[in-house]
Amino acid sequence: MSTTVSPLAPKRYPKMPEIPGVRIATAEAGIKYKGRTDLMVMVFDEGTEVAGVFTRSKCPSAPVDFCRQNLPGGKARVLVVNSGNANAFTGKKGREATALEAKAAAAAAGCKENEVFLASTGVIGEPLAADKFSHLLGDLVKRAEPGAWKEAAQAIMTTDTYPKYLTAKADLGGVEITINGIAKGAGMIAPDMATMLSFVATDAPIAAPVLQDMLSKGTAKTFNAVTVDSDTSTSDTLLLFATGKAAERGAPRITDPKDPRLGAFRRALNRILKQLALQVVRDGEGARKMIEVNVTGAKAARSAKRIALSIANSPLVKTAVAGEDANWGRVVMAVGKAGEPADRDLLTIWFGEHRVAHQGERDPDYSEEAVSAYMKRDDIVITVDLGLGRGKATVWTCDLTKEYVAINGDYRS
Amino acid sequence: MSTTVSPLAPKRYPKMPEIPGVRIATAEAGIKYKGRTDLMVMVFDEGTEVAGVFTRSKCPSAPVDFCRQNLPGGKARVLVVNSGNANAFTGKKGREATALEAKAAAAAAGCKENEVFLASTGVIGEPLAADKFSHLLGDLVKRAEPGAWKEAAQAIMTTDTYPKYLTAKADLGGVEITINGIAKGAGMIAPDMATMLSFVATDAPIAAPVLQDMLSKGTAKTFNAVTVDSDTSTSDTLLLFATGKAAERGAPRITDPKDPRLGAFRRALNRILKQLALQVVRDGEGARKMIEVNVTGAKAARSAKRIALSIANSPLVKTAVAGEDANWGRVVMAVGKAGEPADRDLLTIWFGEHRVAHQGERDPDYSEEAVSAYMKRDDIVITVDLGLGRGKATVWTCDLTKEYVAINGDYRS
Repeated sequence: MSTTVSPLAPKRYPKMPEIPGVRIATAEAGIKYKGRTDLMVMVFDEGTEVAGVFTRSKCPSAPVDFCRQNLPGGKARVLVVNSGNANAFTGKKGREATALEAKAAAAAAGCKENEVFLASTGVIGEPLAADKFSHLLGDLVKRAEPGAWKEAAQAIMTTDTYPKYLTAKADLGGVEITINGIAKGAGMIAPDMATMLSFVATDAPIAAPVLQDMLSKGTAKTFNAVTVDSDTSTSDTLLLFATGKAAERGAPRITDPKDPRLGAFRRALNRILKQLALQVVRDGEGARKMIEVNVTGAKAARSAKRIALSIANSPLVKTAVAGEDANWGRVVMAVGKAGEPADRDLLTIWFGEHRVAHQGERDPDYSEEAVSAYMKRDDIVITVDLGLGRGKATVWTCDLTKEYVAINGDYRS
Repeated sequence: MSTTVSPLAPKRYPKMPEIPGVRIATAEAGIKYKGRTDLMVMVFDEGTEVAGVFTRSKCPSAPVDFCRQNLPGGKARVLVVNSGNANAFTGKKGREATALEAKAAAAAAGCKENEVFLASTGVIGEPLAADKFSHLLGDLVKRAEPGAWKEAAQAIMTTDTYPKYLTAKADLGGVEITINGIAKGAGMIAPDMATMLSFVATDAPIAAPVLQDMLSKGTAKTFNAVTVDSDTSTSDTLLLFATGKAAERGAPRITDPKDPRLGAFRRALNRILKQLALQVVRDGEGARKMIEVNVTGAKAARSAKRIALSIANSPLVKTAVAGEDANWGRVVMAVGKAGEPADRDLLTIWFGEHRVAHQGERDPDYSEEAVSAYMKRDDIVITVDLGLGRGKATVWTCDLTKEYVAINGDYRS
């Protein structure tokens, strides 16, 4: 945990409305941190459906394995999240911990164990002593209340410097529904997913397969388009819960992903996913600047994304931005190393509106002074046009600062 | 340039012998740096053969293009290298600069332009004013002398904190031959090759195709197995020159890569390449520790190398080592993100001789105290056994420190 809030933190936070059918409670379980909450329980009314997207790590955490196993059921009644310990690479003990948590959570919520979802974030490789907090779950479920969204976002923080939470409204068949989301991130953020946990809930009555379709598609240009340090965590978990309570107010139940009434909801969901993902980047460990990388003119969208990620993950590009240096030579380097089709002599590069390079060399009209002034901003946009085709992609990252090294040089100890 | 020498610099430097047929001179051309040499000329006697390996960047520098064009001829008479400016992404001006240099160098050495080799290292994207130093080449060739190997290594440095030069002897058909090598590196070092320049010369009489075969094979486990920051430069150049002068002392001319008399030479060459590559890593920007990553038990050698590079390039692993933290959880993370076959529950991880994780969880016999003491060393060995097959690989990198960020945050300005 950092005591200094990122300079890129939101200036204002939204007031979070309630989501009918969702109740939340948090506790100080003392798993690792002292003097702060580190355990969060989200309780869902009967009939809540769920979808999820997880890390692509070949070494996922025990809770990720657990969630993957329950997801096909499509039903959720309780979510338990702890911070301070990731319960990852904990072998048999890890599975015993999730089993213990699941049993306690199911007993507390009065549901089946396959309606329980779990997530853990923090140190990898240390056994999670679930017996030290599972007895708290009964009380947490009892005192859960609908308004505690901000508190939920706070309880799941690790090296985050501010809580991340957002809300949106959308029309579903003439009825206003609500979507709330929380997230935690900071280090180890990279496609695909990262030590990134995000939980989104809505009162819209949408069937689990439809939720899954929207969530899987929605992550490509949001959570899977952000990177802090190219490292991928063992624990990434994004869950979307739909209580269906808006049906009581006349909202239609949606069972077909192609249902045209879904348009506004999908846009609102994607907006929430994107804004949560950007908040995660803006709180990248040690981040002082947000960087948006646009690649256009690639042979294909896939190629554009690879090049954009090569730029966004380049330590040399990221340190240059930290130093407020419009070092487009390093952008050229990052394009070159991506291994994707590129022709040096067709490249055009902009920092913001400033075209610094054109057709394989420095732009003759380029003003170092103007670009230097631009580089002092908090938000830097790097745009590269490859001049080859119509493929394009956008990814987001942050700069690489001494604080990143300081934070990660002594995180475990 | 840094004023502080890396703590990982060699404790002793070799005395460099002469290579018959090679003469060297350096000059202060004032290309970017003041008060130091930044121009180096290596002159070769007639009959010198050459082989080369270059960056795989899709946006190579003008000198790389130039060398690639001349390489098929297999003959070299003069090498011109400057530091301070990479002549990369300089478009038409870049090609004009190499043409001017080539013309001046050929005139100075009395050879054809296709016997000239060029390399430039430094800032990308700034036009190289070759007219400011090409008039110096005539004098440089005239005053070139056989002993200036250390001076050559010094003239090609950029952010290097110490010059890199090595020598070796080998037997070729009963005659002792010599191999000398110099290199520069520091940042932007990654497979395949990086802002890495290296020039190796020998008096052995070996035909260009045989040199090329040995050099291409030799780089895989040497220069292409080291990484500082995963960034690949536009300028990487490794050239191997053979003057053939040892023939005068009875060394046989080798024209077949399978010639059994080549064994000792090949081993000596590979040793030079490996030691130069390691010296480059030991001078990684801001490096305080050298890290060797061994991966064994992979499905295949290729898979092992990908996993080893995933570990070696992980900012979280590298910052943990900088913080002297045996954070093997991050090693698990890096294995997981590599996308190669891996089974969490079969993983074994060692720091040095200390087995910290076994069969998917923390080693019960693991002593935090002993490992912490180990982590204080300059040289850290991380070994991962995947338990799946017989594929193995070794790569080398350095830690990621605040100094790396400081060096790269204000390099261009």
